[in-house]
Amino acid sequence: MKHHLKYILPLVVIFLVACNGNKKAESISQKNELLFPRGDKNTTDNFEGDVWVKSLVDADSINQTAVGNVTFAPGARSKWHIHPAGQILLATDGVGYYQEKGKSKIILRKGDVVKCPPNISHWHGASPDTAFVQVALTGREKGATVWLDAVGDDDYAERAARKKIL
Amino acid sequence: MKHHLKYILPLVVIFLVACNGNKKAESISQKNELLFPRGDKNTTDNFEGDVWVKSLVDADSINQTAVGNVTFAPGARSKWHIHPAGQILLATDGVGYYQEKGKSKIILRKGDVVKCPPNISHWHGASPDTAFVQVALTGREKGATVWLDAVGDDDYAERAARKKIL
Repeated sequence: MKHHLKYILPLVVIFLVACNGNKKAESISQKNELLFPRGDKNTTDNFEGDVWVKSLVDADSINQTAVGNVTFAPGARSKWHIHPAGQILLATDGVGYYQEKGKSKIILRKGDVVKCPPNISHWHGASPDTAFVQVALTGREKGATVWLDAVGDDDYAERAARKKIL
Repeated sequence: MKHHLKYILPLVVIFLVACNGNKKAESISQKNELLFPRGDKNTTDNFEGDVWVKSLVDADSINQTAVGNVTFAPGARSKWHIHPAGQILLATDGVGYYQEKGKSKIILRKGDVVKCPPNISHWHGASPDTAFVQVALTGREKGATVWLDAVGDDDYAERAARKKIL
């Protein structure tokens, strides 16, 4: 039997390498299947860390809701801010955080939906280890976003209490 | 060499079967990874064919935009209808159709975005062979959807002219 190992062993190695290669290729392919384009890298100081924004629908005189796709690299976050007409967030990928002033931070995962009331100070971003992608629906009929202070490391590191608002 | 085939051939067969099994398992897993729950099957006569609707955000006195996830089985479609405050459609999976009265039908695929103006008669649905999933953002501040006639087979079968509006 032993002298046949020279035929069998190389085939076992090819089998393991090929199947592993298959998995890697499909995993990368899944990562590249973005729902919406990532868009341009943020250059404002309204965010900390690497953030990409793709506008999907601009608000206009008839439709006052702007729709944008926002991608946060791990650890990236917005500053605290206020939307005068409120905002709806649809979590589409990864693991993110959302916190309203005075409330516990919550974890957002693909499929979670947040309804942020008008004039409530809040922030959102990615978890430390995993990127986060959201679609933001922002009413523009009562004015532009009001940007406030940066999110402190204590707030960012606080233990998340709930997974979903809605 | 020939007498070694009894060792080599079974390994080749195992290799091919195992790698193929890998692909099938990952393909099914991708299909099951819905972005939002499919929700309840439509029981109104506003649609033709099998349609599922999951409300994600209800409109209220502060936020007038309703957000819903709609899944059309292959061939399923809405009737012609009007939204008094317009609608935004985000195509999230599959292959669908969208048509405004008097314009060519367009094909919608994952990542496509449609901005439907207020008071424009239109319909949407799945292509004949592939289901379609959309997130619909519907302004409720000017009243409820006005439902009109069923989409004729001629309109449904018309050749699609463009892929994207935006």
